Amino acid sequence: MDSSSLAAMNVTLRGKTRHFRTVSFDAKKNAVRLVEQRLLPHEFRVVSVADHRATAGAIRDMVVRGAGAIGATAAYGLAQGAREFTGTSPAKFERHVDRVFARLKDARPTAVDPVNAMLGVRAAMANGEDIAARQELALRAAEAFAEADVRHCAELGEHGAPLIREGSRVLTHCNAGWLAFVDVGTATAPLYAAHAAGRRFHVFCDETRPRCQGASLTAWELAQQGISHQVIADNAAGHLMQRGEIDLVIVGSDRVLGRTGDVANKIGTYTKAILARHHRIPFYVAIPLSTIDWNLRAGTDIPIEERSESEVLGAWGIDGRGHRVRVQVANPTSGARNPGFDVTPAALVTGIVTPVGILRPRELWRRRSELGGPAK
Amino acid sequence: MDSSSLAAMNVTLRGKTRHFRTVSFDAKKNAVRLVEQRLLPHEFRVVSVADHRATAGAIRDMVVRGAGAIGATAAYGLAQGAREFTGTSPAKFERHVDRVFARLKDARPTAVDPVNAMLGVRAAMANGEDIAARQELALRAAEAFAEADVRHCAELGEHGAPLIREGSRVLTHCNAGWLAFVDVGTATAPLYAAHAAGRRFHVFCDETRPRCQGASLTAWELAQQGISHQVIADNAAGHLMQRGEIDLVIVGSDRVLGRTGDVANKIGTYTKAILARHHRIPFYVAIPLSTIDWNLRAGTDIPIEERSESEVLGAWGIDGRGHRVRVQVANPTSGARNPGFDVTPAALVTGIVTPVGILRPRELWRRRSELGGPAK
Repeated sequence: MDSSSLAAMNVTLRGKTRHFRTVSFDAKKNAVRLVEQRLLPHEFRVVSVADHRATAGAIRDMVVRGAGAIGATAAYGLAQGAREFTGTSPAKFERHVDRVFARLKDARPTAVDPVNAMLGVRAAMANGEDIAARQELALRAAEAFAEADVRHCAELGEHGAPLIREGSRVLTHCNAGWLAFVDVGTATAPLYAAHAAGRRFHVFCDETRPRCQGASLTAWELAQQGISHQVIADNAAGHLMQRGEIDLVIVGSDRVLGRTGDVANKIGTYTKAILARHHRIPFYVAIPLSTIDWNLRAGTDIPIEERSESEVLGAWGIDGRGHRVRVQVANPTSGARNPGFDVTPAALVTGIVTPVGILRPRELWRRRSELGGPAK
Repeated sequence: MDSSSLAAMNVTLRGKTRHFRTVSFDAKKNAVRLVEQRLLPHEFRVVSVADHRATAGAIRDMVVRGAGAIGATAAYGLAQGAREFTGTSPAKFERHVDRVFARLKDARPTAVDPVNAMLGVRAAMANGEDIAARQELALRAAEAFAEADVRHCAELGEHGAPLIREGSRVLTHCNAGWLAFVDVGTATAPLYAAHAAGRRFHVFCDETRPRCQGASLTAWELAQQGISHQVIADNAAGHLMQRGEIDLVIVGSDRVLGRTGDVANKIGTYTKAILARHHRIPFYVAIPLSTIDWNLRAGTDIPIEERSESEVLGAWGIDGRGHRVRVQVANPTSGARNPGFDVTPAALVTGIVTPVGILRPRELWRRRSELGGPAK
């Protein structure tokens, strides 16, 4: 299967525009190919990861990040590991695959996407009659997972595109773009679809301190696609809304509660939702159905990861000599609080853009059977 | 006059605590002494500025910044320049003082505080019968200006201190501390007064991108005074308010409209005011009376400075080798919007903490005659 067959994003290198996916697979070399995200936006490089241990390392070291992207990487990694087996004992093969599964799972222990993706691959493998068949089925299942990720994002984009009108000024926060998925992305999907339809609009990218994914990754993506955009400090959106310069907010999410419609996403999302409500600006959340959590009962049940103080006290960037360095910005004798995520209550969310359409937050539970939720 | 007589702030250097003002004057050497603010929080140094041209340069190059601090620096600079005159012609002396005034004014052409401060010095000089008397009066007027700045901040602090209760958790934005004035500061004045009264409380310092004055200057000040505090990303305050971890917001201001009570301050202040209102948290603005603008009729009339894109696209800090460098954080082919200030409508302001008490925003105009405003 040609991994650039569906909706692949453009990257311009030395004047030439090519198509890339965040994650793809080279079956001949049995290698996972990843966009090296730690170098962006300053350098674009695709790395070929030669075996499943290195693939686990790439997940752990954040060569690849984002829900859909690490799910696909783990799926490919499991197929890669299965295909590394050269013995003849079916029992030994199964134990080998168990170990590969555990290694990939342990690379990012709190993430749910790699596990769900690998369980799908594992289930598909069970239909193979011998080791070779199972290895082949693993690869096909991983490819199918990646294709589904792209298709869901593209469908989401088609449903969301009408929100982006000619001349719209759109605010987005953090990176829920193609770099966070296999391709297309979620919050960016309606933007890319509207752009492909020829509409002109402008995007404000929240810098998204402390890790600055908006300023670095989203701005880079939009630049590659040729979409008009500017970076703003996280402090500036309120002022721009007050002056009537923002028409719409669209963000991704790490977890949407199926029972309530509450939305967990990067720290600062909740603030943007309150600002949007205050200024009567629509606030949309774009997600694949796999982001819906059907178990938790309240937004306050979502655990909020407290991350390293050093992220807040400093910043990463390229210095005058072209080296990637961290600088200490804050007073060196001060500490920091660094909650990584926040929870936006459903009442502040205008709509949830999904591959099956734009839903009101409360519709998720009512329509749970068709959205992959628990039986009524 | 001993410039450490009133409410001077502590700085601990090599284990020894000493008192410093942001701006003071060495009459023997005819030198303006300034805390070199561009080195903070990484290095504390007081520079002695030898003549009025260098003082103008220090204002222009932001060795000193903040409304009260540049006002006092200009007042001292005018006295310094007047005292440099060695001739005997009164007419030549006046022309010399005019040139000194113009040089100091031109150092920061849009700032109003240096001009107001120097007009006061100029008026006081007119009472002198000869050049020597006028030189002496200039210095006395500059000292009086600096003392009044400190006294106003200290009075403001006494009025505001009851807002800071035992166990309070306070959010502040940017730096309206002693570094922005001659001493004590405005938003920090109630904190320092409550601390001096023995109350324990905690301060969250908004980082305040893009220039990070909260993470660098305010955090440094609070560390020097031994006040419990943490830096947070500008994105985090909403989450902390939602979780009930902030009891009060207090900020400074660059301009408060006497007619309406609208508040212009560092970009992001307006967002914090909306968040505070959403969570029913009181939002206070601390100012000396000189910050009140009695002329403008509406917050929308306040011009908002659009600053350099490079501030948003990068960050300044100390690298691993101890050098102060700028790093490029954002995608290098992206631009930025960088409004430097925003306007918080009076309706979002709980109270304005002034040297004469805590006022409701709408009280300013009603009580304008006692606040230094136009006659009724």
